[in-house]
Amino acid sequence: MMPSLTDVVLDPIVRLALTEDLASGDVTTDACISPNARAHADARARGEIVVCGGAVFSRVFALVDASVKFEAKLEDGAIAKPGDVIWSVEGSARSLLMAERAALNFVQRMSGIATITRAYVAAVPKGCPTRIIDTRKTTPGLRVLERYAVRAGGGMNHRDNLGSAVLIKDNHVAACGGVGKAIERARAYAPHTSKIECEVDSLVQLDEALAAGADIVLLDNMTTTDLAEAVRRCNGKAFTEASGGITLARIGELAKTGVDAISVGALTHSITSADIGLDFRDA
Amino acid sequence: MMPSLTDVVLDPIVRLALTEDLASGDVTTDACISPNARAHADARARGEIVVCGGAVFSRVFALVDASVKFEAKLEDGAIAKPGDVIWSVEGSARSLLMAERAALNFVQRMSGIATITRAYVAAVPKGCPTRIIDTRKTTPGLRVLERYAVRAGGGMNHRDNLGSAVLIKDNHVAACGGVGKAIERARAYAPHTSKIECEVDSLVQLDEALAAGADIVLLDNMTTTDLAEAVRRCNGKAFTEASGGITLARIGELAKTGVDAISVGALTHSITSADIGLDFRDA
Amino acid sequence: MMPSLTDVVLDPIVRLALTEDLASGDVTTDACISPNARAHADARARGEIVVCGGAVFSRVFALVDASVKFEAKLEDGAIAKPGDVIWSVEGSARSLLMAERAALNFVQRMSGIATITRAYVAAVPKGCPTRIIDTRKTTPGLRVLERYAVRAGGGMNHRDNLGSAVLIKDNHVAACGGVGKAIERARAYAPHTSKIECEVDSLVQLDEALAAGADIVLLDNMTTTDLAEAVRRCNGKAFTEASGGITLARIGELAKTGVDAISVGALTHSITSADIGLDFRDA
Amino acid sequence: MMPSLTDVVLDPIVRLALTEDLASGDVTTDACISPNARAHADARARGEIVVCGGAVFSRVFALVDASVKFEAKLEDGAIAKPGDVIWSVEGSARSLLMAERAALNFVQRMSGIATITRAYVAAVPKGCPTRIIDTRKTTPGLRVLERYAVRAGGGMNHRDNLGSAVLIKDNHVAACGGVGKAIERARAYAPHTSKIECEVDSLVQLDEALAAGADIVLLDNMTTTDLAEAVRRCNGKAFTEASGGITLARIGELAKTGVDAISVGALTHSITSADIGLDFRDA
Amino acid sequence: MMPSLTDVVLDPIVRLALTEDLASGDVTTDACISPNARAHADARARGEIVVCGGAVFSRVFALVDASVKFEAKLEDGAIAKPGDVIWSVEGSARSLLMAERAALNFVQRMSGIATITRAYVAAVPKGCPTRIIDTRKTTPGLRVLERYAVRAGGGMNHRDNLGSAVLIKDNHVAACGGVGKAIERARAYAPHTSKIECEVDSLVQLDEALAAGADIVLLDNMTTTDLAEAVRRCNGKAFTEASGGITLARIGELAKTGVDAISVGALTHSITSADIGLDFRDA
Amino acid sequence: MMPSLTDVVLDPIVRLALTEDLASGDVTTDACISPNARAHADARARGEIVVCGGAVFSRVFALVDASVKFEAKLEDGAIAKPGDVIWSVEGSARSLLMAERAALNFVQRMSGIATITRAYVAAVPKGCPTRIIDTRKTTPGLRVLERYAVRAGGGMNHRDNLGSAVLIKDNHVAACGGVGKAIERARAYAPHTSKIECEVDSLVQLDEALAAGADIVLLDNMTTTDLAEAVRRCNGKAFTEASGGITLARIGELAKTGVDAISVGALTHSITSADIGLDFRDA
Repeated sequence: MMPSLTDVVLDPIVRLALTEDLASGDVTTDACISPNARAHADARARGEIVVCGGAVFSRVFALVDASVKFEAKLEDGAIAKPGDVIWSVEGSARSLLMAERAALNFVQRMSGIATITRAYVAAVPKGCPTRIIDTRKTTPGLRVLERYAVRAGGGMNHRDNLGSAVLIKDNHVAACGGVGKAIERARAYAPHTSKIECEVDSLVQLDEALAAGADIVLLDNMTTTDLAEAVRRCNGKAFTEASGGITLARIGELAKTGVDAISVGALTHSITSADIGLDFRDA
Repeated sequence: MMPSLTDVVLDPIVRLALTEDLASGDVTTDACISPNARAHADARARGEIVVCGGAVFSRVFALVDASVKFEAKLEDGAIAKPGDVIWSVEGSARSLLMAERAALNFVQRMSGIATITRAYVAAVPKGCPTRIIDTRKTTPGLRVLERYAVRAGGGMNHRDNLGSAVLIKDNHVAACGGVGKAIERARAYAPHTSKIECEVDSLVQLDEALAAGADIVLLDNMTTTDLAEAVRRCNGKAFTEASGGITLARIGELAKTGVDAISVGALTHSITSADIGLDFRDA
Repeated sequence: MMPSLTDVVLDPIVRLALTEDLASGDVTTDACISPNARAHADARARGEIVVCGGAVFSRVFALVDASVKFEAKLEDGAIAKPGDVIWSVEGSARSLLMAERAALNFVQRMSGIATITRAYVAAVPKGCPTRIIDTRKTTPGLRVLERYAVRAGGGMNHRDNLGSAVLIKDNHVAACGGVGKAIERARAYAPHTSKIECEVDSLVQLDEALAAGADIVLLDNMTTTDLAEAVRRCNGKAFTEASGGITLARIGELAKTGVDAISVGALTHSITSADIGLDFRDA
Repeated sequence: MMPSLTDVVLDPIVRLALTEDLASGDVTTDACISPNARAHADARARGEIVVCGGAVFSRVFALVDASVKFEAKLEDGAIAKPGDVIWSVEGSARSLLMAERAALNFVQRMSGIATITRAYVAAVPKGCPTRIIDTRKTTPGLRVLERYAVRAGGGMNHRDNLGSAVLIKDNHVAACGGVGKAIERARAYAPHTSKIECEVDSLVQLDEALAAGADIVLLDNMTTTDLAEAVRRCNGKAFTEASGGITLARIGELAKTGVDAISVGALTHSITSADIGLDFRDA
Repeated sequence: MMPSLTDVVLDPIVRLALTEDLASGDVTTDACISPNARAHADARARGEIVVCGGAVFSRVFALVDASVKFEAKLEDGAIAKPGDVIWSVEGSARSLLMAERAALNFVQRMSGIATITRAYVAAVPKGCPTRIIDTRKTTPGLRVLERYAVRAGGGMNHRDNLGSAVLIKDNHVAACGGVGKAIERARAYAPHTSKIECEVDSLVQLDEALAAGADIVLLDNMTTTDLAEAVRRCNGKAFTEASGGITLARIGELAKTGVDAISVGALTHSITSADIGLDFRDA
Repeated sequence: MMPSLTDVVLDPIVRLALTEDLASGDVTTDACISPNARAHADARARGEIVVCGGAVFSRVFALVDASVKFEAKLEDGAIAKPGDVIWSVEGSARSLLMAERAALNFVQRMSGIATITRAYVAAVPKGCPTRIIDTRKTTPGLRVLERYAVRAGGGMNHRDNLGSAVLIKDNHVAACGGVGKAIERARAYAPHTSKIECEVDSLVQLDEALAAGADIVLLDNMTTTDLAEAVRRCNGKAFTEASGGITLARIGELAKTGVDAISVGALTHSITSADIGLDFRDA
């Protein structure tokens, strides 16, 4: 199921994007288009993509002009073939032209993330329950949209922010004097609703983390062989997450180790925008 | 020369990014790190990159904790080799850890854009004055940073927003009844400080645009042969911009046509984050 | 054609104005008017004015109470005679009274600007194509509304902000070591979509600016005689703008020099509010 | 004594004004001025004016660049002769140029209000205790600054907003069924800290308001003769305020009636900006 | 009559509350509830309470999802018996669940304030005109809602903020060199629309305040006997307000002194939330 | 260890509170206190309280006037005896007076929460590891401060918001068709970093939740006997949280059941402000 994207969460981001583009008006559209002109435009895929961002697309037009009508032809998470109409908008021609670029900038990015996520998910061999998950390496200001897009592509999310779960990294370990002590301090401090995840670089550290009762172990930059051994040692005692040095090509072999999740920063920090155009119908 | 990035412009974006990550606190750091602990960390390139984002990096830490000290070892636009220290921060260990991810998310993106821009710029043959320029296909909310990053990579900027120059596209032409009429209406309407750019798809449209006195012509999706002919016809009467279907591989042949600028959406919409890590020095 | 004023641009300004007046409620209206009372009120000109601000007037009431009905009897740019109804609103009596002052403060200012602009425009002799244009000497926070009002009065706009075009002033010239060098640096730096305007104080500087290829010359504080000579020297090579020491009385003689535009700071910084009242109809 | 203008109140307005002008950077300054260049500039009166706005002037530069140094040579409320230096700023040349226009737009308006207010105050004959006061006819978003400027000119303030005192107008009277009933309802409803002012158009209404115990009567659009009679009838039982049809020429005769205050909308809605320039010292 | 609570005033507070709870989505609801599921829920009193907050309750749901339908069964200020339905909402089940906690947090607090206020008001003996009033000891950010809630409980408001009336306290007296001098300075400075209240600790200070013409005297921390004497001395010359050391048990004897108002900080700073639950109807 | 409260998180709340009180200035202070007057004031406990809010107290003064000096005499979480100085501020007398009420409103509330929390924590019998925890029944806008205050009193936090952990309630169970199915759907959907808590009303539901692998069970409104039995059945398989019908008097017997945590809404929704005064030292 897809998460809800409520207007109270979307509006600050959409307003920011529109202000960036439209604060000084649209001199071309104001010059060339009559305020009474009407138009009808279709957002169409120009390649095979995973659709994502209908609510945002719609909201961009609505905040420029509440009277623009929006229709979704394909739901978020659906696959669009080249030429497929994804969304349609109808209303004042000026409004459609003024909102076009901001709307496309959002959905091209979101659909790009969904599309690449699907590729990673598809690379997990049948029968492996391994989750493909995102990281906090998201675009500043857009995290909520990018996490949503990862789900549209069939991926799952990591913790949303620094307050929603414990993730002990090397600096925390160093400050506490060891993995075990860090986990102990986190358990004593964190809300009982927070799971405790601990990054480990070696099998030695892994054993220490398991002994201390970590809920999740982040197996960082391991070879596939070490990863397999780590997963074996966990044996259901902790959730296993592989991270670091992940490429699409390695997903298959990593998943076969039985690791529970593979986190991929590239899902959000190094993506190719999906090619989506807005075609105006002839009047 | 690099543009100024003033705090009054940076702060809303930086606050947004920090709020996203830190609104609920950092449960791990609060659990594991003493409020009195001090640290010193170096942002270090992990590949060869064009450095970009010092002012933003510094501002992220400053807004978490005004007492953090910042030093730039390399200026924006410089090339960092793998292992080079780019920036250093020193202060409360908690503050450094809480700001780390937000700071890196900014500069990895900005340096990624600068790095890819430099590749495009380097592909312009010696002696060709062709500018590599960005587009409005930027990440929502980050346009000012991404335009800055393009400059750090040696590129130049297109218009900043819909109000800063005229750019007549196919829908405007259709509404006005032709390229000539659209240009005429734009000239009558736009501030005298706005140049008038017109997108043309064919040499016929180009002639019409030149006859109407367009300041700039956007030569959209042309073959290299057609582009060369278009540039020839312009002959100094209009600034020429090639756009659409641009790849790094084509830059050389396109530049050799003598075109004044090549605009590349991919500089901002489809980039690979630069690999920059934050290394904490041993206490 | 009038520019679009979209809600996404208007709302922050309107919210600020309403908050200023209404954050602590309206103690008089709450005391005296039943929440169920309905009213109908007409905004009426009390002198001959150029109408301006319908979208803002409407939005003020809408943000206080989305159920208020609004009707425009005269469009922005029209001339209202004393007693003419310009706009009507109908709805909760409380809502109309609470929004009244904020709404009038906006439109009295906007119509005042439009009215004085029309006087300047009317002073341009028939057949002279001289534009009357505004400056950046606008009221902090209201620039978008004031530029709009200048257009409603038949004027045209200068650049919107410091990023939308180059305007080289004496300090820039001094820093660069001359008009020619400043223009050269600006051309090398600015987006190709930005025109380059240069302020000149003398005919010598003018020649230098023309030689360097300025797109626009700002002829500052010149006598009419010097202005005429400057326009003659430009001879189509640069757009000419007269500025400084402009009064309504001088517009005729200045326009007759053939200058392309006259910029008038007083259009926005020293205006008389238009007299518009809100008359409640008897129940 | 002048009121305090705290940063927490100023900052939203100053940020708005700077964003308006600087959101897209300053292309001219970035092109022509080195980031390392320093400058020193003096804000100088170009006519005889009442100085106003030092705190805002200073804050504009500080929000662009916290390292700019500011010095006030003349305090708010002082009279500057043509050529007098009012304020000086020193720091990065880029910062001074980028902040210049926004800073001047504020203080030219504030000093303009202070200057015209002083003219009205000076027109009150010696010995008359009549206050010259402002109204809520202020520029949207700038009320706090404009009320401050009226004080700098020697005027006094009316209520700040709809929640800070009761002011019964004709529509409230009509809804309540008479002046007496409206005052009674207001007294029953309003905080005990709110004075109750009632607008009266005639001596009959005045008597009714006095009988009902109004604290203040607003004597609207009365002839000087009627005003004198109204003041006589009040005889200390209510504070008297004359309003409507006020011109500078009438202040003397109005004040001689003994009226306690004269409110003048034009102090804020129809002013001439004070002429203040920012002169850069030679390096 | 109840004050108006307009959306322009409510929205920033409601958005803040929703962002706090919902910025990262509602992981439970998104997991368990279909986006198409509909629900109908009733806010029901679980004790006898004074109802307060309908407009805020409604607005919370509307800002999550504009299509949620709201109905008020009981008006603000009404008394609800245990089990009474106060408000009903109907719409998307996800929307109702996501908004539930934020909506209840508002109205439980507001109804709690209204309920305790009513207890204080009820403790004033029949025939005593003494007002029970609030103070500025309100919850940061919620003052407008808490003042409204005091009115819903039958109480009255004190000044809204530091700018709406004069209240001279001991530090002001000390700085001015006495009660009389402080009142004199305040009268000379304050808008004519501001009443002047002065805190007095003793009958000596009271006499001084009365002699100086204070409009209101704040009788601070007096014994009932002293209070009675103070009220007698005022004898209509000043409005009397008792403050400090107020408990519900003392209201009767204090009111019998004839004091005009008793201000009670506990109405807003130390309240018990009203018990209101949101019951979902069976589908 | 106490959590960090960074300025980037505090500032929006502090600005909101100051704007509420100070947007129209402080008419009394401006009238009575010279802008040059200096003062020194001590925040002092007037009862035995748990200190909380130093960072907020300091920030309120800093945002009014950055030059105010702040010193903490007691740390958050310390116990202050009546008369103890907690914090001192020194600077402009105007600034101290203008910020006083806002600063006290924050810390009286926060210290009130810390003080009551400590009472609940103290009621847990020696040797029982039961945590006293808060809920999401916090004051709108102040959640981050109230959660902090609970920690200052020795309590622990529940989940921060709807996105940071799963908490399945009756409506979710009903929609999914049972406790087991709801848990299963949540596990499939939620980030692997989220614990899954499930509310159960009966021992039957408890068994179902345990069978489905809930991480935490919320034992709602159970008798002490049932609670003891529930804890016994959990036997380390799930974390146990008692909730509903909690009073201070019952904490002892509830804790003796061995329950892991007791959540208490009253810690934040029904508190008594701590009595803290700001005493100005004699000059």
